[in-house]
Amino acid sequence: MPVYLRGLLFLAENGRESVSSRNLAELLGVNAWQIRKDFSYFGDFGTRGVGYEIKTLTSQIKKILRLDIGRKIAVVGIGNLGSAVLAYRGFGIYGFAIAAAFDNDAKKIGKKTGNVEIEDVANLGTLKRRKIDLAIITVPQDAAQATADRLVEAGIRAILNFSPCYITVPKKVKVITIDIAMDLARLPYYMPTS
Amino acid sequence: MPVYLRGLLFLAENGRESVSSRNLAELLGVNAWQIRKDFSYFGDFGTRGVGYEIKTLTSQIKKILRLDIGRKIAVVGIGNLGSAVLAYRGFGIYGFAIAAAFDNDAKKIGKKTGNVEIEDVANLGTLKRRKIDLAIITVPQDAAQATADRLVEAGIRAILNFSPCYITVPKKVKVITIDIAMDLARLPYYMPTS
Repeated sequence: MPVYLRGLLFLAENGRESVSSRNLAELLGVNAWQIRKDFSYFGDFGTRGVGYEIKTLTSQIKKILRLDIGRKIAVVGIGNLGSAVLAYRGFGIYGFAIAAAFDNDAKKIGKKTGNVEIEDVANLGTLKRRKIDLAIITVPQDAAQATADRLVEAGIRAILNFSPCYITVPKKVKVITIDIAMDLARLPYYMPTS
Repeated sequence: MPVYLRGLLFLAENGRESVSSRNLAELLGVNAWQIRKDFSYFGDFGTRGVGYEIKTLTSQIKKILRLDIGRKIAVVGIGNLGSAVLAYRGFGIYGFAIAAAFDNDAKKIGKKTGNVEIEDVANLGTLKRRKIDLAIITVPQDAAQATADRLVEAGIRAILNFSPCYITVPKKVKVITIDIAMDLARLPYYMPTS
């Protein structure tokens, strides 16, 4: 679903109002029948011959994915990767806004990057009061678990973890770990030796 | 499969020699029956009561994913994200080695980061001769397609694209696009309003 949403948002940005399952499939590199199957599962959004009305479909998928309300994000660990996340412009279309950035380096604390000022990780406890319940972890691997523990304590309910390690959290908290190397490891399969 | 491989490599690093489908499922947050099903599809790697022998299973999956040979990678665009990729330590266990880094900023060219010296993008044509056929794109969005075109011309066969846009390449080239915002967009689904 997020993959479909991304494709639809891209088409909308480019002025498109409707799309056939075939064209969407081509853009995303998936099967058209899979798209029709997945969309039909959530109700009938398409019209034969016209395709799917992008605006309706987008708002339906956003609702399903609970992206129909704005959400504030905290980024913890403002090294190279954290800085790249802060500079990233793709969050807005999903209703995300980076509302806080944290580091433990005194040289970084107080500096402004984009719209947020880097705060001391000692301030993590303020997240609950500030209604921030989504966090991105971009700290070094050996600090990841301790950071996750503090975020859970601060009321965070979902974490996108960029540290190349598994972190353990209570069942009520959802973690998705992004491992760049693992994503890269998916490619050679498609590169048969010629 | 890459997800399983990652879990198995993690267990091996921590000194484990075998693992049950149940324990692996717990670590990865997937279903044990799914693991048994997927593994049986590629042959019978497990022993009842003992579980899977990690070393054997790892090398089998590496073979399937064509990760059983070392591969050299090029990184194009050494901003914050590119620097984070160069500093990333998780590539080695998949047989990857970053062998080249490129940027178009004269101030960056010639600087050494890790083991590689940043080269002028004008040198991209040398990749074929250097037997580098895998690339990571970390350039700004508006430079992504042009970069991809040059990489394809230079004989690159697979691209991990971190620019938040779709890039078009010939069929023989495989692209995986990583969109941080889309990964983040998968989380709210698991955060019902309480």
